[in-house]
Amino acid sequence: MELSQFTDYSPRGLIYSTVRQPEKITITELTKVYRISHHHLVKVVHHLGKLGYLENKRGRNGGIYLGKNPHQVSIGDVVRRTETHLNLVECFNAKNNACRLTPACRLMGALIEARDAFFGVLDAYRLRIRNPS
Amino acid sequence: MELSQFTDYSPRGLIYSTVRQPEKITITELTKVYRISHHHLVKVVHHLGKLGYLENKRGRNGGIYLGKNPHQVSIGDVVRRTETHLNLVECFNAKNNACRLTPACRLMGALIEARDAFFGVLDAYRLRIRNPS
Repeated sequence: MELSQFTDYSPRGLIYSTVRQPEKITITELTKVYRISHHHLVKVVHHLGKLGYLENKRGRNGGIYLGKNPHQVSIGDVVRRTETHLNLVECFNAKNNACRLTPACRLMGALIEARDAFFGVLDAYRLRIRNPS
Repeated sequence: MELSQFTDYSPRGLIYSTVRQPEKITITELTKVYRISHHHLVKVVHHLGKLGYLENKRGRNGGIYLGKNPHQVSIGDVVRRTETHLNLVECFNAKNNACRLTPACRLMGALIEARDAFFGVLDAYRLRIRNPS
């Protein structure tokens, strides 16, 4: 049970940007703080920009800024929107599912409920991390 | 966010054995029902045997039988005991964690709480699957 590295670095990038507010951040800074590859972070930052979580401003004070109010961004949403693999087990994917028990089996329902509970907890945490109110 | 194939097949093997009770099951049967490799299932069944979930009886009526009362086996326990990777993100593993924000960051706490909620749901489901009481 692992989140992808891509997902792992996404909230981390946003948390760093939140801490540095109202300053801009650079990918070089992120690379130093998290000690991960520059190449990998370029992709993460680009994706977070596309989702509006980060904003790439041009001009004299240009740079990467937080794109949203950190009190309104839930960690659950960030994880949900960056984790592409949310199929916990084979039968979640009707296309590849070869299991003959599926019609009678309630395992999938239990796992979906468990996944919902997982995100339910993360939804209550905001980017400016403090205990859920 | 995926469980390993090994974990995916473990509750499935037990569910099949529960359905077939009091009959024994064979790995060949499991291979046919789930359409997965015999080699892979041998490892899963061996591990489930070591944990006491399955029992390999010898003798004339020998074969693989369910090793526990299916009303008492929680799906949460099966997943917890077969999924070796429970480190959702890098900072869960103190050995490999290179992140400098860890001491001040509350992301790990949120993720641990989310993981606990995930297992909390599965703990309420028993092998003889019915809605949690």
